[in-house]
Amino acid sequence: MNDHEAMGAALNEAARAVLHRDVPIGAVCLIGGEVVARRHNERELRQDPTAHAEMLVLADAAATAGSWRLTDATVVVTLEPCPMCAGGLFAARVRSVVFGATDPKAGSCGTLYNLCADPRLNHEIEVTGGIRAEESAALLRDFFAGRR
Amino acid sequence: MNDHEAMGAALNEAARAVLHRDVPIGAVCLIGGEVVARRHNERELRQDPTAHAEMLVLADAAATAGSWRLTDATVVVTLEPCPMCAGGLFAARVRSVVFGATDPKAGSCGTLYNLCADPRLNHEIEVTGGIRAEESAALLRDFFAGRR
Repeated sequence: MNDHEAMGAALNEAARAVLHRDVPIGAVCLIGGEVVARRHNERELRQDPTAHAEMLVLADAAATAGSWRLTDATVVVTLEPCPMCAGGLFAARVRSVVFGATDPKAGSCGTLYNLCADPRLNHEIEVTGGIRAEESAALLRDFFAGRR
Repeated sequence: MNDHEAMGAALNEAARAVLHRDVPIGAVCLIGGEVVARRHNERELRQDPTAHAEMLVLADAAATAGSWRLTDATVVVTLEPCPMCAGGLFAARVRSVVFGATDPKAGSCGTLYNLCADPRLNHEIEVTGGIRAEESAALLRDFFAGRR
Protein backbone atom coordinates (compact mmCIF):
# COMPACT_ATOMS: atom_id res chain seq x y z
CA MET A 1 0.00 0.00 0.00
CA ASN A 2 1.47 3.37 -0.98
CA ASP A 3 1.37 6.57 1.08
CA HIS A 4 -1.60 7.96 -0.83
CA GLU A 5 -3.67 4.81 -0.21
CA ALA A 6 -2.61 4.54 3.42
CA MET A 7 -3.59 8.17 3.96
CA GLY A 8 -6.99 7.33 2.50
CA ALA A 9 -7.44 4.75 5.26
CA ALA A 10 -6.30 7.32 7.85
CA LEU A 11 -8.77 9.88 6.44
CA ASN A 12 -11.58 7.32 6.73
CA GLU A 13 -10.64 6.83 10.38
CA ALA A 14 -10.54 10.60 10.95
CA ALA A 15 -14.09 10.96 9.63
CA ARG A 16 -15.29 8.38 12.17
CA ALA A 17 -14.08 10.55 15.09
CA VAL A 18 -16.77 13.10 14.30
CA LEU A 19 -19.46 10.53 15.12
CA HIS A 20 -18.53 11.00 18.81
CA ARG A 21 -17.68 14.71 18.51
CA ASP A 22 -13.94 14.20 18.58
CA VAL A 23 -11.61 16.32 16.47
CA PRO A 24 -11.25 14.35 13.20
CA ILE A 25 -7.75 12.94 13.20
CA GLY A 26 -7.01 9.39 12.11
CA ALA A 27 -3.96 7.15 11.87
CA VAL A 28 -2.96 3.79 10.50
CA CYS A 29 0.17 1.75 11.16
CA LEU A 30 1.81 -0.24 8.38
CA ILE A 31 4.27 -3.08 8.80
CA GLY A 32 5.58 -4.80 5.69
CA GLY A 33 3.24 -2.68 3.58
CA GLU A 34 0.13 -4.02 5.35
CA VAL A 35 -2.15 -2.07 7.69
CA VAL A 36 -1.80 -3.67 11.14
CA ALA A 37 -3.75 -1.02 13.10
CA ARG A 38 -6.18 1.81 12.32
CA ARG A 39 -7.55 4.22 14.94
CA HIS A 40 -8.95 7.70 15.37
CA ASN A 41 -8.91 10.34 18.05
CA GLU A 42 -11.00 9.27 21.07
CA ARG A 43 -10.06 12.00 23.52
CA GLU A 44 -13.59 13.25 24.07
CA LEU A 45 -15.23 9.84 23.78
CA ARG A 46 -13.05 8.36 26.49
CA GLN A 47 -12.20 11.64 28.28
CA ASP A 48 -8.61 10.45 28.10
CA PRO A 49 -5.89 13.02 27.31
CA THR A 50 -3.63 10.28 25.95
CA ALA A 51 -6.20 8.90 23.47
CA HIS A 52 -4.87 10.62 20.34
CA ALA A 53 -5.07 8.57 17.14
CA GLU A 54 -1.31 7.98 16.94
CA MET A 55 -1.00 6.75 20.53
CA LEU A 56 -3.87 4.31 20.07
CA VAL A 57 -2.46 3.02 16.79
CA LEU A 58 0.99 2.52 18.36
CA ALA A 59 -0.49 0.52 21.25
CA ASP A 60 -2.58 -1.62 18.87
CA ALA A 61 0.32 -2.21 16.49
CA ALA A 62 2.58 -3.25 19.37
CA ALA A 63 -0.08 -5.65 20.65
CA THR A 64 -0.29 -7.20 17.17
CA ALA A 65 3.49 -7.32 16.75
CA GLY A 66 4.04 -8.62 20.29
CA SER A 67 6.77 -6.05 20.87
CA TRP A 68 7.01 -2.42 21.96
CA ARG A 69 9.81 -1.97 19.41
CA LEU A 70 8.14 -1.12 16.11
CA THR A 71 11.32 -0.62 14.12
CA ASP A 72 9.71 -1.79 10.85
CA ALA A 73 6.60 0.34 11.23
CA THR A 74 5.32 3.37 9.36
CA VAL A 75 2.65 5.50 11.01
CA VAL A 76 0.43 7.44 8.61
CA VAL A 77 -1.60 10.21 10.26
CA THR A 78 -3.86 12.93 8.90
CA LEU A 79 -2.37 15.78 10.99
CA GLU A 80 1.23 16.47 11.98
CA PRO A 81 1.79 14.82 15.38
CA CYS A 82 1.78 16.90 18.60
CA PRO A 83 4.68 16.66 21.10
CA MET A 84 3.12 13.64 22.88
CA CYS A 85 2.52 11.72 19.66
CA ALA A 86 5.85 12.59 18.05
CA GLY A 87 7.43 11.47 21.33
CA GLY A 88 5.37 8.28 21.12
CA LEU A 89 6.73 7.55 17.63
CA PHE A 90 10.21 7.96 19.11
CA ALA A 91 9.37 5.80 22.15
CA ALA A 92 8.19 3.05 19.76
CA ARG A 93 11.27 3.42 17.53
CA VAL A 94 9.15 3.52 14.38
CA ARG A 95 10.95 3.69 11.05
CA SER A 96 8.91 6.46 9.45
CA VAL A 97 5.97 8.79 9.77
CA VAL A 98 3.79 10.20 7.00
CA PHE A 99 1.43 13.05 7.79
CA GLY A 100 -1.17 15.14 5.99
CA ALA A 101 -1.71 18.72 7.11
CA THR A 102 0.89 20.57 9.15
CA ASP A 103 -0.10 21.82 12.62
CA PRO A 104 1.10 25.36 13.32
CA LYS A 105 -0.07 25.17 16.97
CA ALA A 106 1.65 22.01 18.17
CA GLY A 107 3.25 20.18 15.23
CA SER A 108 6.36 18.34 16.40
CA CYS A 109 7.59 16.66 13.22
CA GLY A 110 9.05 19.82 11.71
CA THR A 111 6.84 22.77 12.63
CA LEU A 112 7.40 23.75 16.31
CA TYR A 113 9.79 20.89 16.99
CA ASN A 114 11.23 18.01 15.06
CA LEU A 115 11.35 15.20 17.58
CA CYS A 116 11.92 12.79 14.67
CA ALA A 117 15.33 14.18 13.72
CA ASP A 118 17.31 15.26 16.76
CA PRO A 119 20.87 13.90 16.82
CA ARG A 120 20.79 14.06 20.64
CA LEU A 121 18.06 11.40 20.72
CA ASN A 122 19.05 7.77 20.12
CA HIS A 123 16.65 7.15 17.23
CA GLU A 124 15.70 9.07 14.11
CA ILE A 125 12.50 8.74 12.12
CA GLU A 126 12.01 9.43 8.42
CA VAL A 127 9.36 12.14 7.96
CA THR A 128 7.12 12.79 4.94
CA GLY A 129 4.58 15.61 5.26
CA GLY A 130 1.86 17.07 3.08
CA ILE A 131 0.25 13.86 1.80
CA ARG A 132 -3.41 14.60 0.96
CA ALA A 133 -3.06 17.61 3.25
CA GLU A 134 -6.02 19.48 1.79
CA GLU A 135 -8.42 16.60 2.50
CA SER A 136 -7.20 16.44 6.09
CA ALA A 137 -7.48 20.21 6.54
CA ALA A 138 -10.99 20.20 5.04
CA LEU A 139 -12.16 17.62 7.58
CA LEU A 140 -10.83 19.76 10.43
CA ARG A 141 -12.23 22.99 8.98
CA ASP A 142 -15.71 21.50 8.53
CA PHE A 143 -15.64 20.08 12.06
CA PHE A 144 -14.73 23.38 13.73
CA ALA A 145 -17.14 25.34 11.49
CA GLY A 146 -19.92 23.00 12.59
CA ARG A 147 -19.18 23.64 16.26
CA ARG A 148 -19.56 27.44 16.05
CA MET B 1 0.78 15.69 50.85
CA ASN B 2 4.00 17.58 50.14
CA ASP B 3 6.39 16.96 47.24
CA HIS B 4 8.75 14.86 49.38
CA GLU B 5 5.93 12.55 50.52
CA ALA B 6 4.40 12.31 47.04
CA MET B 7 7.81 11.38 45.63
CA GLY B 8 7.99 8.63 48.25
CA ALA B 9 4.81 7.15 46.77
CA ALA B 10 6.26 7.47 43.27
CA LEU B 11 9.49 5.77 44.39
CA ASN B 12 7.45 2.90 45.85
CA GLU B 13 5.73 2.53 42.48
CA ALA B 14 9.09 2.62 40.67
CA ALA B 15 10.39 -0.25 42.80
CA ARG B 16 7.39 -2.36 41.76
CA ALA B 17 8.33 -2.11 38.07
CA VAL B 18 11.42 -4.24 38.73
CA LEU B 19 9.17 -7.18 39.66
CA HIS B 20 8.35 -7.52 35.95
CA ARG B 21 11.79 -6.43 34.71
CA ASP B 22 10.70 -2.97 33.67
CA VAL B 23 12.95 0.05 34.13
CA PRO B 24 12.04 1.36 37.62
CA ILE B 25 10.15 4.60 37.03
CA GLY B 26 7.04 5.48 39.02
CA ALA B 27 4.53 8.32 39.05
CA VAL B 28 1.60 9.56 41.09
CA CYS B 29 -1.01 12.17 40.24
CA LEU B 30 -2.30 14.54 42.91
CA ILE B 31 -5.49 16.57 42.74
CA GLY B 32 -6.37 18.76 45.72
CA GLY B 33 -3.36 17.38 47.57
CA GLU B 34 -4.64 13.80 47.38
CA VAL B 35 -3.18 10.96 45.32
CA VAL B 36 -5.77 10.03 42.68
CA ALA B 37 -3.57 7.68 40.63
CA ARG B 38 -0.29 5.81 41.10
CA ARG B 39 1.39 3.76 38.38
CA HIS B 40 4.75 2.48 37.24
CA ASN B 41 6.43 1.74 33.94
CA GLU B 42 4.84 -1.30 32.25
CA ARG B 43 6.51 -1.10 28.84
CA GLU B 44 8.08 -4.55 29.00
CA LEU B 45 5.23 -6.17 30.91
CA ARG B 46 2.66 -5.10 28.33
CA GLN B 47 5.07 -4.75 25.36
CA ASP B 48 3.44 -1.36 24.84
CA PRO B 49 5.66 1.58 23.87
CA THR B 50 3.13 4.03 25.33
CA ALA B 51 2.99 2.39 28.78
CA HIS B 52 5.35 4.77 30.58
CA ALA B 53 4.42 5.56 34.19
CA GLU B 54 3.33 9.13 33.45
CA MET B 55 1.04 8.14 30.55
CA LEU B 56 -0.66 5.48 32.66
CA VAL B 57 -1.10 7.85 35.60
CA LEU B 58 -2.60 10.52 33.32
CA ALA B 59 -5.12 8.06 31.86
CA ASP B 60 -6.07 6.80 35.33
CA ALA B 61 -6.37 10.29 36.78
CA ALA B 62 -8.58 11.39 33.87
CA ALA B 63 -10.81 8.35 34.37
CA THR B 64 -11.18 9.25 38.05
CA ALA B 65 -11.76 12.93 37.33
CA GLY B 66 -14.13 12.19 34.45
CA SER B 67 -12.32 14.68 32.23
CA TRP B 68 -9.29 14.74 29.97
CA ARG B 69 -8.53 18.25 31.23
CA LEU B 70 -6.47 17.83 34.39
CA THR B 71 -5.91 21.53 35.05
CA ASP B 72 -5.76 21.06 38.85
CA ALA B 73 -3.39 18.11 38.72
CA THR B 74 0.24 17.71 39.74
CA VAL B 75 2.16 14.74 38.36
CA VAL B 76 5.06 13.55 40.52
CA VAL B 77 7.48 11.22 38.72
CA THR B 78 10.82 9.71 39.70
CA LEU B 79 12.63 10.54 36.42
CA GLU B 80 12.40 13.62 34.21
CA PRO B 81 9.74 12.92 31.57
CA CYS B 82 10.71 11.94 28.01
CA PRO B 83 9.27 13.79 24.97
CA MET B 84 6.15 11.58 24.89
CA CYS B 85 5.41 12.00 28.58
CA ALA B 86 6.18 15.72 28.73
CA GLY B 87 3.89 16.04 25.70
CA GLY B 88 1.29 14.01 27.60
CA LEU B 89 1.43 16.44 30.53
CA PHE B 90 0.83 19.23 28.03
CA ALA B 91 -2.00 17.30 26.30
CA ALA B 92 -3.68 16.87 29.71
CA ARG B 93 -3.16 20.54 30.64
CA VAL B 94 -1.76 19.61 34.06
CA ARG B 95 -0.88 22.43 36.42
CA SER B 96 2.53 21.20 37.54
CA VAL B 97 5.10 18.44 37.35
CA VAL B 98 7.61 17.40 40.00
CA PHE B 99 10.42 15.07 39.04
CA GLY B 100 13.34 13.34 40.75
CA ALA B 101 16.46 12.62 38.69
CA THR B 102 17.18 14.49 35.47
CA ASP B 103 17.46 12.46 32.24
CA PRO B 104 20.38 13.53 30.07
CA LYS B 105 19.28 11.20 27.23
CA ALA B 106 15.65 12.24 26.71
CA GLY B 107 14.59 14.65 29.47
CA SER B 108 12.01 17.06 28.10
CA CYS B 109 11.18 19.21 31.13
CA GLY B 110 14.37 21.25 30.98
CA THR B 111 17.22 19.02 29.82
CA LEU B 112 16.95 18.36 26.04
CA TYR B 113 13.67 20.23 25.67
CA ASN B 114 11.33 22.08 27.94
CA LEU B 115 7.89 21.20 26.60
CA CYS B 116 6.42 22.59 29.84
CA ALA B 117 7.47 26.17 29.19
CA ASP B 118 7.23 27.07 25.52
CA PRO B 119 5.38 30.33 24.85
CA ARG B 120 4.37 28.96 21.41
CA LEU B 121 2.29 26.23 23.06
CA ASN B 122 -1.10 27.19 24.53
CA HIS B 123 -0.42 25.88 28.05
CA GLU B 124 2.49 26.15 30.46
CA ILE B 125 3.29 23.78 33.30
CA GLU B 126 5.15 24.61 36.51
CA VAL B 127 8.25 22.40 36.81
CA THR B 128 10.14 21.37 39.96
CA GLY B 129 13.08 19.01 39.49
CA GLY B 130 15.57 17.28 41.74
CA ILE B 131 13.18 16.02 44.47
CA ARG B 132 14.73 12.88 46.06
CA ALA B 133 16.81 12.61 42.90
CA GLU B 134 19.48 10.42 44.48
CA GLU B 135 16.95 7.77 45.53
CA SER B 136 15.51 7.69 42.03
CA ALA B 137 18.95 7.48 40.43
CA ALA B 138 19.97 4.69 42.82
CA LEU B 139 16.95 2.59 41.79
CA LEU B 140 17.90 2.98 38.12
CA ARG B 141 21.59 2.33 38.75
CA ASP B 142 20.88 -0.86 40.70
CA PHE B 143 18.48 -2.06 38.02
CA PHE B 144 20.93 -1.61 35.14
CA ALA B 145 23.83 -3.03 37.20
CA GLY B 146 21.73 -6.15 37.84
CA ARG B 147 21.11 -6.64 34.13
CA ARG B 148 24.78 -6.70 33.18
